[in-house]
Amino acid sequence: MKHLIEIDEMARGRNATPVVAAVWPEDDSTLNALAMALEHGIADVIAVGCHEQILAKLAGKPGTERLEAVEAATPAEAASVAVALVRQGKTQLIMKGLVNTDVLLKAVLNKECGLMEPGGVLTHVTIGEIPVHHKLLLFGDVAVLPCPNAEQREAQLRLMLRMARRLGIDRPRVAMVHCSEKVDERHFPVTAHYRDLVGRAATGEFGDCIVDGPLDIKTVLNAHAAAVKGINSPLQGDADILVFPEIESGNVFYKAMTLFADMKTAALVCGARVPLVVPSRGDDSDTKFHSLAAATILL
Amino acid sequence: MKHLIEIDEMARGRNATPVVAAVWPEDDSTLNALAMALEHGIADVIAVGCHEQILAKLAGKPGTERLEAVEAATPAEAASVAVALVRQGKTQLIMKGLVNTDVLLKAVLNKECGLMEPGGVLTHVTIGEIPVHHKLLLFGDVAVLPCPNAEQREAQLRLMLRMARRLGIDRPRVAMVHCSEKVDERHFPVTAHYRDLVGRAATGEFGDCIVDGPLDIKTVLNAHAAAVKGINSPLQGDADILVFPEIESGNVFYKAMTLFADMKTAALVCGARVPLVVPSRGDDSDTKFHSLAAATILL
Repeated sequence: MKHLIEIDEMARGRNATPVVAAVWPEDDSTLNALAMALEHGIADVIAVGCHEQILAKLAGKPGTERLEAVEAATPAEAASVAVALVRQGKTQLIMKGLVNTDVLLKAVLNKECGLMEPGGVLTHVTIGEIPVHHKLLLFGDVAVLPCPNAEQREAQLRLMLRMARRLGIDRPRVAMVHCSEKVDERHFPVTAHYRDLVGRAATGEFGDCIVDGPLDIKTVLNAHAAAVKGINSPLQGDADILVFPEIESGNVFYKAMTLFADMKTAALVCGARVPLVVPSRGDDSDTKFHSLAAATILL
Repeated sequence: MKHLIEIDEMARGRNATPVVAAVWPEDDSTLNALAMALEHGIADVIAVGCHEQILAKLAGKPGTERLEAVEAATPAEAASVAVALVRQGKTQLIMKGLVNTDVLLKAVLNKECGLMEPGGVLTHVTIGEIPVHHKLLLFGDVAVLPCPNAEQREAQLRLMLRMARRLGIDRPRVAMVHCSEKVDERHFPVTAHYRDLVGRAATGEFGDCIVDGPLDIKTVLNAHAAAVKGINSPLQGDADILVFPEIESGNVFYKAMTLFADMKTAALVCGARVPLVVPSRGDDSDTKFHSLAAATILL
């Protein structure tokens, strides 16, 4: 796949229509994304905590007969209500509206009435469309896990592989990104995690996939750059998935590419009982819609 | 400044012509860069450890009467010889040829016969020309300092300010980059370093400059993004200098922008007794020439 719009098409092709709980969807871009989802039959919507006059903006648009509203007094309450709706089996997705990600995740992570399984790990996955690149890239974590430990890293790898396979990539190529190709446990403990996961992937522990690293981002995305460095990686300069060492590098990639390489994105938080649609503040309607579409194909 | 070529012009306008020791300049791109430097009168050259038949490639080109050769048996020996030439006052710059950066830096860092002052810190500074951005950006560290501590961070800030001022930026705007705008000492100790430096900059300790952070890279390079987030920074979305939290994020920025945003660069290692011209393996002649030109304006 090269375009995010292909994910939208994939989402439209699903048999069942999931219900998404939209948390405090008071901003125009979230409302527009929900309207698009209703129009294209990608999801039914429960708007949680949205003022009636705001919801009225959607009235009369195609598909809005599949829109419900549930009251909540604050964004935090809306987040808790959305989580409860999932636990009651009434929704299969949660989408963030005009609420801080922290507030939403707090409700999801609540030990008694949240959405985590024991040992579960929440991680942010972005799908990026870069005009000058020949295919979509999956990458993370740019926003949620600050500095994954070995267990979190494995969970992240498994979740990203799952997303890639749902996108139709049968044998995902995973790059474990680092500034160098050297394992240096003393200065960069992450490189030891990488070595471990690369070895286990080679035994088939993570299913059909190619995992390699540590490798730098240029080497894994450009065969010529790999050749110049004399690096012979099975990724062949054509990774599908970029696992960043920590949040700083992921965040810089995400934002720099958006600013300077015209990257378009869809963004999810995976690892809870249901996918969470968590675009950035300031993302446009299309980004929010693509994110929702990507979430549905994880179901 | 918007173009690296303006740095070349600045270098040509200097009164004195420095001498650069080129360490094992056996690759075409380094040789071409040296030929350009000789032709434009930017530097005289001592080629250290280069085989005669390779050096002969430059014979007859303009300015090669200002080219000398000094013998060395290995790249490591060539690095030591270049360092010795600096200590003898015979060269004012060192440029890396076909030698690993580690090998060159080892000679520079040698306690007895290297080029460091007590307490000195080596840090990598890149000057990037991004076609879609309105001016050159200085940033670091993408290659040398893995994870600066507070003292190294301050040294890095001072060295980058010096470079910016030499480029004619009287009041450099410095962004201390982090994935968020929050100081969170527990999870991100770097944010406490940032807070300290921002405070000290405000008292004038680093001369005329504007230092702000922690802030994310989009906020410091795009006024609209800052406004959407409600962030009111004196950088006004127009930073001159990006200080990255650690090497992973710097390295990803550098390589991703080169790959996907057609960024051109000049790269130096600052903090030794003389500037070190340290381009990446695989950089082209122009990049190596721009790097050398940038080094001369630090003199």
